[in-house]
Order: sequence, then structure tokens, then C-alpha cells
Amino acid sequence: MSLRGALMVIETASASIVDVKEPGMVARKSVTLFSEESPLTLASGKTLGPISVAYQTYGALSPRRDNAVYVCHALTGDAHVAGRHHPQDRKPGWWDGFIGPGKAIDTDRYFVICANVLGGCQGTTGPRDRNPQTDVPWGPEFPFLTVSDIVQVHQALVEELGIERLLAAIGGSLGGMQVLEWAARFPDRLASAIVLAAGAKLNAQGIAFNAVGRRAIYADPAFNGGWYYGEGEPPRFGLALARMIAHITYLSEQSIEMKFGRKLQHSAELTYDLLRETEFQIESYLHHQGKTFVERFDANSYLLLTRAMDYFDLVESHGPLPHVFRKTDARFLVVSYTTDWLFPTAQSREIVRALLEARRHVSFAELESPHGHDAFLIDSQLPMLGRLVTPFLDTTYRDQAGG
Amino acid sequence: MSLRGALMVIETASASIVDVKEPGMVARKSVTLFSEESPLTLASGKTLGPISVAYQTYGALSPRRDNAVYVCHALTGDAHVAGRHHPQDRKPGWWDGFIGPGKAIDTDRYFVICANVLGGCQGTTGPRDRNPQTDVPWGPEFPFLTVSDIVQVHQALVEELGIERLLAAIGGSLGGMQVLEWAARFPDRLASAIVLAAGAKLNAQGIAFNAVGRRAIYADPAFNGGWYYGEGEPPRFGLALARMIAHITYLSEQSIEMKFGRKLQHSAELTYDLLRETEFQIESYLHHQGKTFVERFDANSYLLLTRAMDYFDLVESHGPLPHVFRKTDARFLVVSYTTDWLFPTAQSREIVRALLEARRHVSFAELESPHGHDAFLIDSQLPMLGRLVTPFLDTTYRDQAGG
Repeated sequence: MSLRGALMVIETASASIVDVKEPGMVARKSVTLFSEESPLTLASGKTLGPISVAYQTYGALSPRRDNAVYVCHALTGDAHVAGRHHPQDRKPGWWDGFIGPGKAIDTDRYFVICANVLGGCQGTTGPRDRNPQTDVPWGPEFPFLTVSDIVQVHQALVEELGIERLLAAIGGSLGGMQVLEWAARFPDRLASAIVLAAGAKLNAQGIAFNAVGRRAIYADPAFNGGWYYGEGEPPRFGLALARMIAHITYLSEQSIEMKFGRKLQHSAELTYDLLRETEFQIESYLHHQGKTFVERFDANSYLLLTRAMDYFDLVESHGPLPHVFRKTDARFLVVSYTTDWLFPTAQSREIVRALLEARRHVSFAELESPHGHDAFLIDSQLPMLGRLVTPFLDTTYRDQAGG
Repeated sequence: MSLRGALMVIETASASIVDVKEPGMVARKSVTLFSEESPLTLASGKTLGPISVAYQTYGALSPRRDNAVYVCHALTGDAHVAGRHHPQDRKPGWWDGFIGPGKAIDTDRYFVICANVLGGCQGTTGPRDRNPQTDVPWGPEFPFLTVSDIVQVHQALVEELGIERLLAAIGGSLGGMQVLEWAARFPDRLASAIVLAAGAKLNAQGIAFNAVGRRAIYADPAFNGGWYYGEGEPPRFGLALARMIAHITYLSEQSIEMKFGRKLQHSAELTYDLLRETEFQIESYLHHQGKTFVERFDANSYLLLTRAMDYFDLVESHGPLPHVFRKTDARFLVVSYTTDWLFPTAQSREIVRALLEARRHVSFAELESPHGHDAFLIDSQLPMLGRLVTPFLDTTYRDQAGG
């Protein structure tokens, strides 16, 4: 087996420096950006530093450093976008069907970067980490975050990696918001922007669902005002419930009906038992989603990041959309899904119209899928997305090289 | 001012018998149906009796007893469908814009009945009431309910009132399910059935939203397994949260966007304060909805009635829809709303197709409204509905008299 096709990884933070691991294996990396003396200034006016960033890379950066594709993960994603950390890992990264050697984003050709977002709980500085001022976890005192703050950290990582300009930033949902913010805030740092299942702002219905999810966490007595990292239990009920609520919004009526319908979970007969919470399969599925989520996610991060989504409004931050897009020369690919009701196609069209008005290059597709908002994450839906993204990246790369 | 136009009310259960009150005033009535010796047999196989039923009536029953219109209320409604109990009442009944002298359902012409559903918390026997076996409130030991059980009590009330056959049963949402069940279970007791914003079953997405609402109640420590009627507090957080979640599903993306958008509640500026739960107006609105709901509703009733909705499936209970409808000679009016995503128009069309296949009389309209599922309850949307319901009732009444 040739090493071509292997994911090239460079371990920067661990004690052992390795250049090449087994094919398909990827290493966790970490870097410290900003500092107490030179902190990041947040949108709120507060400052934060130093900031640890957990990230992973795939493929090799070209000598001209012009083949970097930055993946912005969604609300509950992380840096582990593809490959496995160990051969025994049961599951690969969350977008492994899309990123890798010969895949839609071909790591034989492109250098892919993905970092856990600021405020997250998968390695990048967040509320679970120690506050250097108090020597205990930040908890609810972690500074309020915006998508702009998250993107500032991404951009600092890109610079740290010696990359002047990305070939592309790509992301769905909250990831798509990051891509839009990137183009607005650092208009000359992207050759292209790929925005999936997102919008230029979160609409009121989205804020409403985030609000009830947060309410579930706040109302859980174990939340204790955000101070739960000590001996107590984390707010498992509240966080699980928030996830269950949100999960419904990631699916579509059609996909839930196809997958579960009114099928029962435990028996062929209705039980007429009010305390049985998982009688229907859809109930059991949601409970399972809630249960597994609390194993991997932190409630304070969930609060911070959903609020960052709520606050996201490109027009509010940067002015009318055509004005925003006129400042960047990035070309855009905008994708929506027919059954996505959290970020309906109308929100993508709004972006596309503004790009056209600003005389930017934009490709737009509304993809037919029964899978609702989550379609951009579902393996069976990836080939359809790849048929847009792969040529878009290739053309951008070619035109950039020629330019 | 003439007494024509006054709501005629007959007090049956209170100590003072009054025949005519002030114009527009309506009395609470109560009747005991079934008994310990002759109880109601529920779908679960359990029995329940006696059952108190809280109801209200409007207008006068015709000498031929052929002008009775029964209103089936939705999940959190009650018997107080129109008029006021006292001249000082701030608000009239929940469908006062639709029912009354000269209104869409004209109480100068029709005798209107509305009863609180079995298992409710507004006067009809429910979990908050005393269990005669134990002498304490039923709490979680109240028997499991179905829409069929609810309708059996409605039908018993109709018989108690000396009405052989209703001119119409009308209801939206869970009320519409009751109307469908009525036609299926008592096919010769209705001259017509008016089904608004409902379906022949609750779909999986509806079950999912009910499930997360119930989870919020179960997870509230104050719920205490349903035993909270004593000295403790009721599960206010849980019930409020359940209501907040459900309330989003009663609106539409469009109506939330029109009414609230991203407007802030307290100030012109974003506060960057994570503990501020009501920063956006939509959040404040939902919190208000939750807060006022717990003042008037009982958590155990909420659990029972949402589960009754989940269980509702006409085909499961009665066989294929055309087969069900072939048994009744009731004529149908089926109405859906363009932006109702809880009971989308497709569910109404399924009913209409089955009625056509069964060669029944059916009128169907999908009404254009931005107000989502709640449109059938919103004053501004009632004239549009009235233009269907009023002639439908009049024609049914005329044809029945002629028949």
C-alpha cells in the first residue's frame, strides 16, 4: 500500500513529533494564540488571552501555500473532521465521508484545516477550562462570544500556519455563519467561501428554539448558575433536553416520518402507560440523542454558542449585504436544502441576491433532500454536495493559480 | 336593548337556577355522567365513574332539537368558548370572535355546547380531582386517556342534554381529532363534521414535540412523579417550558418573523450578557406564554392530553379511512392553513381523499394565512373561516330540515 492517500499529519503540541502516521490516522494538534499581554479583543469589548486552539490538518500545504481549505464546524462539531485518531476508533471524524484522499474535498490535493471553535469543549479554550485569574474553571464567567470572535481565532490560526490567503472556507449552519463572517471581516483572506444551510442572520424562529433549549439548561437545578464543574453533577437533564429539542429542528417532517412514523419501540401493542417515555421509536431516538450528547458536550459551551448564533446578523454588524460583499473578491458557493426549515432556502437566496447585486461570482443550488437541515452532514447526501463542491474548489484553485 | 342577541343560559348544577342572564353573560354548568356502578370503559380497558363534566351552552335548543353545534376544544382550551362569566371579566371565551349572536356560529340560530375534556383541569374530572378510592387527588394514577375516551364523554353529555343527533361537531387541532373520532365512533350522531387544522393521526414530528414537552415536566424535580398537589410546588418550570416549546409549533416562521424578527426587548443595544434570558422580544414572548400558562393549567393534564394526541390514529383504531367514512352520513368541512406545519395541508388532503373515495359530501379549503397552526384561533383570521363555516352550517341545517 502506497503512502500516497495517507493523511499527512504534523504533531505540533505533543511531546513526540511525528510527520507521517498510519494511513487514515490523524493527530490532535494544539497551539496557543494570543496572550495575556496581547489578548484577543472580543465583540463585547472584553479581552481574552492566551487562547488554546485544538485543530487538525489533512493533506499537505503546497509550496505556494495556496491550497488550504478551512472547515468551520457547526454548533456541536469539533476539530475532528475526518480520519481516525487510532486504528481502533469506532467512528471517524464527523465529515469523513466528504474529506480525505480522493474524496469530495481531496486531501491529496488540498490542505484541510479544522479547529474547535472558541468557547467550545473539545480542546479550544472554553468555559470548562481554567480561568488564569481565578485558577478555577471559567464556568459562567467565560466571556460572551460572537461568531466574529470565533472567526478572529480561526484567522489567527491560519496566520500561525503561515497561510496568507485561504483557497476556501467551508461550513454548514453555524459553520456557514462563520464563513460569511470571515468574508465580511477579512475580505482579502479568502479566495472562496462555501456556505451551506445557513443564512446572513438567525431568524426569530431559530432564536426561539435556542431560547427554549437554554431555558432547559438554566432550569435544571444541577446547572447551579453555571458552577457545576466541581463535585456536583453537570445539568444532564437540561442539556439532554436542549439537544432533543434542537435535534427535531435538524430533521424534517418528511425524514422523521420516513424513518420512524408511528412505529413503537418496545412492543407491537400500545401500553397505555403514561410513565413510559419511549413508547414510540421517535421518542426513543430523541432520548438516545440527548443521552449521548451530554457525554460529549458541555452545557456552558452550549449556552455560549447558541447565543453566538442568536447574535449573528451580518447586516447588523457590517451593513447592507451588497455593501459587505462588495469588499471581498471571494467567489461564493451557496447551498440550501429543500426540506431545511431551520435555514430555509429563502435565507440562501437573500445572500445570493446580495452577491449578484455586488457583482460577485456566486453559484447557488437548492439541493433536493428529505433530510432537513442535517442533510449536509448525512453520508447518503454527500455525493450530491460533492458534485458541487469538488468542481467549485478545482476551478477556484485553477483560476487562482492562473491569476 | 332587546334580549334577542343575549346568550341564553341554563344553570343546571349550581344552587341558583337562572334561565336568562345579562346579555353576553354565560354560566358555568356541570353535570355528573356515568357512575361507580355504571362507569365509562376506557380504551385502555380501565373504567372511570362518576365523571363530572364542566360545560357551557349558548343560544337555545330548537323544539326539534336539531340545531346543536358541539365545539371540541384543543389541547389547552376549556368549556368557556364564548361570552363572559361576569361583566367585569377582562377576556371573553377563547372563540368569542367566532361564536355568539350574529357571529359565524350564530347563537341566535344554533344551540352551541362546549365541554372541558375528560382529563382536563377546568372542571371536568381530571388528575387534579379527588380519586374516590383513595380520597386524595388522582395525580399520576388518573387512568390513561385516548381521544376516543374524551369523545365518549362528549357523546354522553349530548345524550344527557336530550339531543339525538348533532347538527355539527367542530374543532381544531386536538379538537379536530375529536370530531373525526366522533364521526368514526358514533357515525349516526352527527349531521356534519368540521375539522380544522387537524389530521387523521398525529405524525412523528408532532409526537416528537410532545415528547420533549413531557420530558421537561418529568425532569422537573417538583414534578415528583406526578404527586405535587400537596404542600409542594407544582412543576412550574417544566410545564412552562413544555408550553414554550409547543407554542413555537403553533406559530409559523413567517408570523414570528413579522411579529418579532430580531427586535430586542429591553434596550436598543445588545447586552452581551449570557444570563439575560429575554434579550430578544421573541424570547420574552415565549417566557410570558410559559408563565401565564402555568397559572391556568395542570401538568398531569398536560401529560395525559398530549399522550392522547400521540395515540390518535384513526386507521389504527377503526381501519382504513374510506372504510371509516363509509359508515357515516355526516357531511364534512375540512380546513387547513398554508403555514400550519404541525398539521400540514397534506394531512387534510388525506382525509378529503378518503371522504371522496367513500363518496361522502366534503368541502375542503386550504386557507392562506401567515399565522401557522394557531390561525383558527386568531381573531383576524376568523372572518375567512366564517365565510366557510356559516354557509356550511346553514346548508346542513336547511338540508336536514328538508330531509
